[in-house]
Amino acid sequence: MKLFSSVNDVANVRQLVQEALDLKKSPFAYQDLGKNKTIGLVFLNPSLRTRLSTQKAAMNLGMSAMVMNMDKEGWALETRDGVVMNGTTVEHIREAAAVMGEYCDILGLRCFPKLEDRGEDYSEDLFNKFVKFCGIPVVSLESATLHPLQSLTDLVTITETWKNPARKPRVVLTWAPHVKALPQAVPNSFAEWMCRAQRDNMVDFVITHPEGYGLAEKFTPGAAINYNQDEALAGADYVYVKNWSSYQDYGKVIPVTGNWMMDLNKLSLTNSAKVMHCLPVRRDIELSSEILDSPHSLVVHEAGNRVWAAQAVLKQMLM
Amino acid sequence: MKLFSSVNDVANVRQLVQEALDLKKSPFAYQDLGKNKTIGLVFLNPSLRTRLSTQKAAMNLGMSAMVMNMDKEGWALETRDGVVMNGTTVEHIREAAAVMGEYCDILGLRCFPKLEDRGEDYSEDLFNKFVKFCGIPVVSLESATLHPLQSLTDLVTITETWKNPARKPRVVLTWAPHVKALPQAVPNSFAEWMCRAQRDNMVDFVITHPEGYGLAEKFTPGAAINYNQDEALAGADYVYVKNWSSYQDYGKVIPVTGNWMMDLNKLSLTNSAKVMHCLPVRRDIELSSEILDSPHSLVVHEAGNRVWAAQAVLKQMLM
Amino acid sequence: MKLFSSVNDVANVRQLVQEALDLKKSPFAYQDLGKNKTIGLVFLNPSLRTRLSTQKAAMNLGMSAMVMNMDKEGWALETRDGVVMNGTTVEHIREAAAVMGEYCDILGLRCFPKLEDRGEDYSEDLFNKFVKFCGIPVVSLESATLHPLQSLTDLVTITETWKNPARKPRVVLTWAPHVKALPQAVPNSFAEWMCRAQRDNMVDFVITHPEGYGLAEKFTPGAAINYNQDEALAGADYVYVKNWSSYQDYGKVIPVTGNWMMDLNKLSLTNSAKVMHCLPVRRDIELSSEILDSPHSLVVHEAGNRVWAAQAVLKQMLM
Repeated sequence: MKLFSSVNDVANVRQLVQEALDLKKSPFAYQDLGKNKTIGLVFLNPSLRTRLSTQKAAMNLGMSAMVMNMDKEGWALETRDGVVMNGTTVEHIREAAAVMGEYCDILGLRCFPKLEDRGEDYSEDLFNKFVKFCGIPVVSLESATLHPLQSLTDLVTITETWKNPARKPRVVLTWAPHVKALPQAVPNSFAEWMCRAQRDNMVDFVITHPEGYGLAEKFTPGAAINYNQDEALAGADYVYVKNWSSYQDYGKVIPVTGNWMMDLNKLSLTNSAKVMHCLPVRRDIELSSEILDSPHSLVVHEAGNRVWAAQAVLKQMLM
Repeated sequence: MKLFSSVNDVANVRQLVQEALDLKKSPFAYQDLGKNKTIGLVFLNPSLRTRLSTQKAAMNLGMSAMVMNMDKEGWALETRDGVVMNGTTVEHIREAAAVMGEYCDILGLRCFPKLEDRGEDYSEDLFNKFVKFCGIPVVSLESATLHPLQSLTDLVTITETWKNPARKPRVVLTWAPHVKALPQAVPNSFAEWMCRAQRDNMVDFVITHPEGYGLAEKFTPGAAINYNQDEALAGADYVYVKNWSSYQDYGKVIPVTGNWMMDLNKLSLTNSAKVMHCLPVRRDIELSSEILDSPHSLVVHEAGNRVWAAQAVLKQMLM
Repeated sequence: MKLFSSVNDVANVRQLVQEALDLKKSPFAYQDLGKNKTIGLVFLNPSLRTRLSTQKAAMNLGMSAMVMNMDKEGWALETRDGVVMNGTTVEHIREAAAVMGEYCDILGLRCFPKLEDRGEDYSEDLFNKFVKFCGIPVVSLESATLHPLQSLTDLVTITETWKNPARKPRVVLTWAPHVKALPQAVPNSFAEWMCRAQRDNMVDFVITHPEGYGLAEKFTPGAAINYNQDEALAGADYVYVKNWSSYQDYGKVIPVTGNWMMDLNKLSLTNSAKVMHCLPVRRDIELSSEILDSPHSLVVHEAGNRVWAAQAVLKQMLM
């Protein structure tokens, strides 16, 4: 594997999930693979879980990790070609990416959307140029529109915890309120992976959100979409809670009517569902404390699985 | 050992000191203990010595270290239960600590007091919640009220340099001036460890400070307290110099009369004492340059011993 | 080798260059040398290439690396002796350097000039005090006036790519425009190394810059200096492009007449020269995009060689 930026970079999703679960049982079985190899983790935006879990995954495989927090160092990158660099950008992505490629065997990149210009964000211009110019394998640590390591983790967690071979689990992605305008990367990515898993006969997938919060269609092929949260939650085995800002009225927080926060009342509509969230979570805004502190919550377990998802991807890249 | 937050977490202080001195002679003798283990070092406040020495101690034991400078990433944690998280805190300590516990085998945490509300600081609310929710062994890298790795280092340094088996050394903790209001964590902790060492027949311990600067009594059981610095220094073998803000008039800098800075004149009152300080030190405010640049100063040697103190504690946690 | 701060610290430049090229072929041949050794990389100013390449070099030699970004932690150091530290500096370099020396086997230090007081910058006061007080081997990661790891890299790159044994390459250092006032460290250092290489019969060396931009004479012994860029470029095999602020009118940007940006027109005056730059480069200000995106550019290759230059120096220090 040379690129992990979307579920479309994965030939066999079921196999990759199994790989992650196998690594969870034997974390140190492949330390020779990464011997004398270095991963560079480049953050244009802050990270906690992604940095730690990917660093841990790399170390489990015998790799060294070098972290570059470029957001904190004010190393503003120029991405446009043909501009005279007499402004605030200090280095062009052509040089910056190529140089990092010289020092590392694999690169991870986090670059959030600006949520100003949908065309720019959804072009994944910065991420794609980084991939192009660095010349080595790249793993997304969350790009403008997708967060594939999170979504692989989520599918790993569902597969690991679903104990009924007689039927597929019903997975519901529900929009939730927040105090800020957030990217669509996590829900886009979760939808993309669940739609693929649905095609692979691993889950049934439903999306529920208020009107005006529809995700880009290219990420939701085959998903059932329901504006009525109560209806969507009926019979759910897994509820994935997440806020996102509007894709149509791009980057905006559109007022909604009714209560969209996931709480025990809503949980009672489900099939005693497990509740998931990528974290960080705003308690009692997105998701009630009662659920988070109950056995229904998978959020910490899910965060722990980030290591094995990252390790499965890095292992593929090293082989 | 599952927790190292105070001398009260140590069953046998004398043995732990000896362990540190043994590790100083054979730093790499236990590298198998830490193989494939990871320590996470979480800093809610800046650190230089503590971060480097603990990282080095972990590496000496074969561990990997992951550093999280959360102060610089603006990852404001919510610690209160039952609050609707619609403000500036982005994650609850329940999730943040639990997730770090998923990625690490041991966690170190630094969290300074705010010096605003004594009850809040002295409850060690944040530190204790972190311990409770992370679910793995925790070592304090300085909490609101204590800095046990520093104090263990100090006792190691005194034990290492005291060459007179005929009697115990006389150790004096003296308040010193500063330009800012500082926490009581270092003097509280030094007092706690020296009082324990006094009970264990390792030292005689005296505290001297201006009126109004008395430390919390629970940290000073059995210590002689003297408001007259000259009297206290008489016959001292070790003088530990440190500023702290008032505990009574909490967090305030109360004006003092007389000269409390440790200098050669005051040193002449002692038994040619060795002078200690946890660093960083304000030269010619807390402690005179003449002393710092003389053979009386142990400050650099003491800082070097931070490695072996941390390594002794981590070794106990790994066993 | 105990100190690497200038070409004058190197007994045999030709041999050190060859060492770097040998390590490039066998990066992991000396991992036992660095076993259980630690390098501390102290940055008083930001770094990308230098941090990553030195960290990689250390890891290739089996060392651990600890990074201290002191610029971001606001750890202001006092360097003057005899001052009462009642201001904004929180620690004296005497203690700070000595303590770092306790935790590491080798230290790297980056400290830029302030470009305010030439005497202060050119005394290398901070760098020299750090060397004096830390008590262990030190490698410059760019000081106020020199950047020797960059210059060694540059000489390695020239040696590696020059394929004509019949004659020496003609190397031209040319001033280029920029939007900011930059230090003279890179051109001083490049001049110092090329003048030495010229004495060692490895290159012919020419410097060209507008009037008012003359470098300090102590760094340019034996260099041909020409204010006419076109004349200087005639027959060049390597063109090293770099901006710097004035040494005479210290730290100032003096207006220049004519076009000093390196572009294809100017390249046509050369012997189809290879073009070098230490990066980051301002495209179409210092150097044209056309050159940077052509096979004439060595900038990425040169940045990659930073690893081998650093590794050759660290290997010398470990032996």
